[in-house]
Amino acid sequence: MRTMSDTVVVGLDIGGTSTRAAAVTLDGVRLGTGRAGGGNPTSHGAERAAGELLAALRAALTGVDPGRVRAGTIGLAGAGRLLADPQGRAAFDRAWSDAGLRCPYAVHGDALVAYASGTASPDGTVLIAGTGAIAAQVHELRLDRVADGHGWLLGDAGSGFWLGREAVRRLLSDLDRGQRPGDLTGPVLAELTGSPAVADPSRATVDAVVQVVTRRPPVELARLAPLVVTAARAGEPVATALVAEAATLLVESAGRIRPAGATDPVVLGGGLLTGDTPLADAVRAELARRWPDAPLHAAGDGAAAAAWLAARDLPGVTDPAALHARLVPAAT
Amino acid sequence: MRTMSDTVVVGLDIGGTSTRAAAVTLDGVRLGTGRAGGGNPTSHGAERAAGELLAALRAALTGVDPGRVRAGTIGLAGAGRLLADPQGRAAFDRAWSDAGLRCPYAVHGDALVAYASGTASPDGTVLIAGTGAIAAQVHELRLDRVADGHGWLLGDAGSGFWLGREAVRRLLSDLDRGQRPGDLTGPVLAELTGSPAVADPSRATVDAVVQVVTRRPPVELARLAPLVVTAARAGEPVATALVAEAATLLVESAGRIRPAGATDPVVLGGGLLTGDTPLADAVRAELARRWPDAPLHAAGDGAAAAAWLAARDLPGVTDPAALHARLVPAAT
Repeated sequence: MRTMSDTVVVGLDIGGTSTRAAAVTLDGVRLGTGRAGGGNPTSHGAERAAGELLAALRAALTGVDPGRVRAGTIGLAGAGRLLADPQGRAAFDRAWSDAGLRCPYAVHGDALVAYASGTASPDGTVLIAGTGAIAAQVHELRLDRVADGHGWLLGDAGSGFWLGREAVRRLLSDLDRGQRPGDLTGPVLAELTGSPAVADPSRATVDAVVQVVTRRPPVELARLAPLVVTAARAGEPVATALVAEAATLLVESAGRIRPAGATDPVVLGGGLLTGDTPLADAVRAELARRWPDAPLHAAGDGAAAAAWLAARDLPGVTDPAALHARLVPAAT
Repeated sequence: MRTMSDTVVVGLDIGGTSTRAAAVTLDGVRLGTGRAGGGNPTSHGAERAAGELLAALRAALTGVDPGRVRAGTIGLAGAGRLLADPQGRAAFDRAWSDAGLRCPYAVHGDALVAYASGTASPDGTVLIAGTGAIAAQVHELRLDRVADGHGWLLGDAGSGFWLGREAVRRLLSDLDRGQRPGDLTGPVLAELTGSPAVADPSRATVDAVVQVVTRRPPVELARLAPLVVTAARAGEPVATALVAEAATLLVESAGRIRPAGATDPVVLGGGLLTGDTPLADAVRAELARRWPDAPLHAAGDGAAAAAWLAARDLPGVTDPAALHARLVPAAT
């Protein structure tokens, strides 16, 4: 008879900058973890994503008999596109089998995995703000309705991209007015132009800023978001106002899909909402105002959550919440 | 002795979609006009711009002895870049001389020419909203300080691009909420997807909208601005709110450079502010509130204004305002 400690599940969380894998037993012993490079199949191509998948899997399975693995789940952005692409799916199948795995695996969106890393509740909302921003309703542990996630040109309201772009807009407004940049816009100017202090709020400086930004991919504006977070933490008024506006926009996106009066949990994910940031604080406060009875959780270990998603459908699993408590480290 | 009717000046207004030329005598007789294709040297290259310049010039000078032309002015977007580019400048010199002209010519920014098409006052403000948006202070008929004009990624607040993008954002918000598009967002959806009525506010519709928009150059979002103007004219609430917000943003840009209490004129230029549009009405109302003693003018005939800018420095011109009244047709 197979016991909880015999049965192994693997979970993978494939992000744009890193891929993480975890191999765990059903009684919660972590047998191995693996980490590899970014593997988003939409941006990197499915072949490369599959290569990172294999590297992370092999690391997590070091010293583990792959025959013990009964199930696996892969969470990634663009899951739908991968599943619709026979070549991409074949590349993932090959990586899976090259790792020695014979069990089936499921593919889910990264938003579902982020959600499951914060709660075992089958129904709730996940709100993610990193480079981009998206909110999704989860129903019976499937992604249901989605709000935003429309990309930087049309959406990502309140995201890192949004914060960075707005910071540059405030800088350009200072320069247009002939004012010296302030405690947020000064560091933004220094970051963009490499000059630590510019005493010249002239059109030449304006042109230099616009040129630096427009020469790069627009999404790189998200790199300026930490400057806004840092300035807001120090109480700088422009950054504080931007963070408040971003929080309003993010919660507005969630409100497009989350019913008024909902009491199921909200999970906060993405670099801007999982850390101890002023934006996370502002979003939590606004969520608590709008849905006072909803538990708030931070997203945690995505690979472990993916492993839990794989495990909960196995025969003999009767208490998925208890399994979640064993498998997924609490983030907050 | 040379008389007012002997002396001819030429003016050119080179825009992104058309080039216009005018040949006028100092007593206000229009000897000819010419029109050619768009000639912005930044977007089309200086050689092509010079070709359009020559075509428009030749049309305007049909039947006119080019030896009678004493001065000329060319207004164009990106004037500074042309002047800094020896090859571009040489191409313009050649076109000028190929048209048979021996007099010198000056090159000014299109914003100055738009300003001069609305007023003869040497000092004032010009506020332009078309595809993009820019405000500039004019001092002694030279462009002085500039606000916005930062392009669609970082600026153009309140422009046609801005209106179009915000209309799509409102559409995506409707779709995220599972609502059928309204009287503004419905036509926007139809324009983007070609389907006159979509009863399916699903994620597939969302994806189709995002894909259509992101496949095109972002600036093409400005093509949706007329839908906003039309809906606002009909009193549609979302469009009305967008127009009000655009007006606030445009006047805020002007306020970055125009002093409080200024009483010199404001000239409104660009397709969104020269026509009888709800945005023009809203901007005029907001300008009148903020600068109650400032005359407001609409930009008019740019080629005639360029001719006036050329003429006013000629020997014997003692009353530039009277000359303006003769040469530049009043727009409003």
